[in-house]
Amino acid sequence: MSNPAVDINSDLGEGFGAWSMGDDRAVLAFVSSANVACGYHAGDPSIMRATVKLCAERGVSVGAHVSYPDLMGFGRRNMACTPDEVYDYCLYQIGALDAFCRASGVELKHVKPHGALYNQAACDGKLAEAIARAVKDAGEGIVLVGLAGAGFASAARSVGVRFAAEAFADRAYLKDGSLMPRSREGAVIHDAQLAARRAAQMVIRGTVAADDGSELQLRPDTICLHGDTKEAVDMAAAVRRALEDAGVRIRPIGEVRSV
Amino acid sequence: MSNPAVDINSDLGEGFGAWSMGDDRAVLAFVSSANVACGYHAGDPSIMRATVKLCAERGVSVGAHVSYPDLMGFGRRNMACTPDEVYDYCLYQIGALDAFCRASGVELKHVKPHGALYNQAACDGKLAEAIARAVKDAGEGIVLVGLAGAGFASAARSVGVRFAAEAFADRAYLKDGSLMPRSREGAVIHDAQLAARRAAQMVIRGTVAADDGSELQLRPDTICLHGDTKEAVDMAAAVRRALEDAGVRIRPIGEVRSV
Amino acid sequence: MSNPAVDINSDLGEGFGAWSMGDDRAVLAFVSSANVACGYHAGDPSIMRATVKLCAERGVSVGAHVSYPDLMGFGRRNMACTPDEVYDYCLYQIGALDAFCRASGVELKHVKPHGALYNQAACDGKLAEAIARAVKDAGEGIVLVGLAGAGFASAARSVGVRFAAEAFADRAYLKDGSLMPRSREGAVIHDAQLAARRAAQMVIRGTVAADDGSELQLRPDTICLHGDTKEAVDMAAAVRRALEDAGVRIRPIGEVRSV
Amino acid sequence: MSNPAVDINSDLGEGFGAWSMGDDRAVLAFVSSANVACGYHAGDPSIMRATVKLCAERGVSVGAHVSYPDLMGFGRRNMACTPDEVYDYCLYQIGALDAFCRASGVELKHVKPHGALYNQAACDGKLAEAIARAVKDAGEGIVLVGLAGAGFASAARSVGVRFAAEAFADRAYLKDGSLMPRSREGAVIHDAQLAARRAAQMVIRGTVAADDGSELQLRPDTICLHGDTKEAVDMAAAVRRALEDAGVRIRPIGEVRSV
Repeated sequence: MSNPAVDINSDLGEGFGAWSMGDDRAVLAFVSSANVACGYHAGDPSIMRATVKLCAERGVSVGAHVSYPDLMGFGRRNMACTPDEVYDYCLYQIGALDAFCRASGVELKHVKPHGALYNQAACDGKLAEAIARAVKDAGEGIVLVGLAGAGFASAARSVGVRFAAEAFADRAYLKDGSLMPRSREGAVIHDAQLAARRAAQMVIRGTVAADDGSELQLRPDTICLHGDTKEAVDMAAAVRRALEDAGVRIRPIGEVRSV
Repeated sequence: MSNPAVDINSDLGEGFGAWSMGDDRAVLAFVSSANVACGYHAGDPSIMRATVKLCAERGVSVGAHVSYPDLMGFGRRNMACTPDEVYDYCLYQIGALDAFCRASGVELKHVKPHGALYNQAACDGKLAEAIARAVKDAGEGIVLVGLAGAGFASAARSVGVRFAAEAFADRAYLKDGSLMPRSREGAVIHDAQLAARRAAQMVIRGTVAADDGSELQLRPDTICLHGDTKEAVDMAAAVRRALEDAGVRIRPIGEVRSV
Repeated sequence: MSNPAVDINSDLGEGFGAWSMGDDRAVLAFVSSANVACGYHAGDPSIMRATVKLCAERGVSVGAHVSYPDLMGFGRRNMACTPDEVYDYCLYQIGALDAFCRASGVELKHVKPHGALYNQAACDGKLAEAIARAVKDAGEGIVLVGLAGAGFASAARSVGVRFAAEAFADRAYLKDGSLMPRSREGAVIHDAQLAARRAAQMVIRGTVAADDGSELQLRPDTICLHGDTKEAVDMAAAVRRALEDAGVRIRPIGEVRSV
Repeated sequence: MSNPAVDINSDLGEGFGAWSMGDDRAVLAFVSSANVACGYHAGDPSIMRATVKLCAERGVSVGAHVSYPDLMGFGRRNMACTPDEVYDYCLYQIGALDAFCRASGVELKHVKPHGALYNQAACDGKLAEAIARAVKDAGEGIVLVGLAGAGFASAARSVGVRFAAEAFADRAYLKDGSLMPRSREGAVIHDAQLAARRAAQMVIRGTVAADDGSELQLRPDTICLHGDTKEAVDMAAAVRRALEDAGVRIRPIGEVRSV
């Protein structure tokens, strides 16, 4: 039996106009997939072009990081959009990024909802399904990325798109498998080595410790690394090294999933 | 020899959010191609989806109506964007609309710059070329639509994309072939019969009268009808009827041009 | 004892850029106060200037119609903004409109939250208080307008701003005093005479029938007329006539309330 | 005779949403006036509130940094707005900031156009006058800040608002008194000591060397320090020290000008 494989993804291209965010070039050295902002929470067309080009040069797989239309709130605020509106917004953003992919000679491989849309869709099957429908209608073979253990998997299945279960190396989990809200102390793990160990355990053993000490079943197809915290690059390096040291192969989303 | 053929295009989907503009359903009865707003001067994702669907149902060919990012000014104000920015903005908008086309099972057939971008690119080869490059990179066989006699044709040729020369049935021309600015009296022709006769003359004879009475050489591949004036529907009907009465076949842009 | 008095308010200036909405000039003949959109759900600076000027000419009192930042959704979608964000957004919008009031020589007299912000603040004391704080900090004597019977009154009291209770002539009420959601059949009353009778009953008797036939206690300081429905002008005329026929004096918000 | 006095101004609050720009706290130690972004090129309501509060705490005078509506281009791209549109946009932005000033117990003291609006108005009297009219209509005693030697002074005079002539310590001048375009090599001075000497010479002697070596007459009321370059804080410190060492008193705009 072959070694386990996992994708490492990170959010890239999160500047806008004159503003930048994170150190995309540094993070790119450690990831196999990039979630590129598409203009609704971050990312303007020029940044999208440059980010896709950078990913193409580095051989990093590109996906669309789709959001509610909330630039002022960075897509982090819940909005009461209808599933049809969510479908429309996702398809718009996916299409826009896809054009830059085609122009750079790469394929758009996955779609991941961002921020509040991610969190709301994780708990609302109709939203998850709306996103999945947009993924399906955007083109053949695009993978929907969403929280492992949430409603994304069944939405993807019912719509008929491939799904990749995502886990977070640097986030605490509640015992029901949901992420601890960022507003709570301890929600974000700042210790790179701890995050690295948790990532390796998820991929190798399919488990991770919840905040109450209980053991969660969680076998991710892709591990998310954040690029916008100060420790981002150190953590990315540590997680990647821990995974490789454990014999895990790092592969882009499309190669990990064959569903 | 077969009868002459021409496309009739109109700007559609120019609402935004709660606001609507024009009577798309009425105008659709008379056009063979629709220029669909892509969110930068008008058009939000939900309106784009609905407009593309409507075009698909009516058998009207769909193209992207790309603009400067100026919602407040409806894309009608000159902006000093660089050619690279224009390329990026066009590719973003084309890609977004293309996703709705794919979802509706139709192909995006053409791209037409809107408003100030149209007018500035008509006089600035670098901008025209930036638009043409976006058209080329967006996909195979997409046709660039631009003012007949302006720099669009040579930009399209140098970049290697198909071009369709556009003329306006309801606009006055200066003797150099440019459109009379809207700020001048007489710039817009409100007499449907006059507009219809001018359209027919352009297609049949390849000429039209300039504002000083001189005869312009002008053989359009596509005639633009406006959908946002009060007389829009009457004029659309009159122009179409005049063309058909003159034996002109009305065909979408892609079929008129075989360059 | 003097006759009862009430204000009649309507939402004005709800166009944006090239788009218009409603017939402001017609509605202005029937109202004593105008809620002017401030750019977040509708209204751009040029429309704001023109609307304030029109109100000044007609002697109609001007207030700020403040919203979540959601132009694409016309401010009608719930958003999870914090109270501090709501305070900031309200103060921004009030200040912007206030400048146009000063330039036109009129005073900004009231502030009314729009759409989803109105509905969420009616049920969330922290949001209502955030709006009230913005009203207080924006200047002396500005009146907060909010749903009668909801949490607005106590928020205004605790912050120390004047409050005007609002009722809707053309909306159905549930027995708890809340508005029937627009998604339900019968939520909007289209019969102008019925709306007029309900308005008069509210002002004269302080009651209105709820959807289950029970009698609600409801004594509004201001009656809202909608300007964006087809029947708007007819309804405005009918309501005003019914109130005047019943001996009710129509006065702007600031004169009705002396709290 | 008293020592010469000058104001030192800098652009502050230039973040947006999740994005920050520059080190406002560090720069505040060296300036007497802050130009606060008002949402059109940068600055959202929450950032505006925080920036005004910070200025109030530090005793730094607050003004509105008004821009074209071009968030994606940071207000740096020329736009063909009409003078009436410019008036409307300026009044909107000034009013919005003014509300935060009132809420913080400070007065809005000046208005300075930003970026492309600054540059276009410097060469176009109608635009300068539109800005001046907005300043006048926004309230009593507000000072218009604009490039020394350009058309701002006469626009301010004709409209009847106070004017403060601005010079740039870190920008090269052409012999006609205009700024060397940023696109040219040498346009921005990166040597803090050189910039400091130039600033002192302008204030003390009323002259500065143009790029061709000729001596320009230039007696500024206010010196602009940039806060968004890497060397910003060092340069700010150097310029302030050089001015104080030369016996120049640093005073906010309103106290320098008594026109």
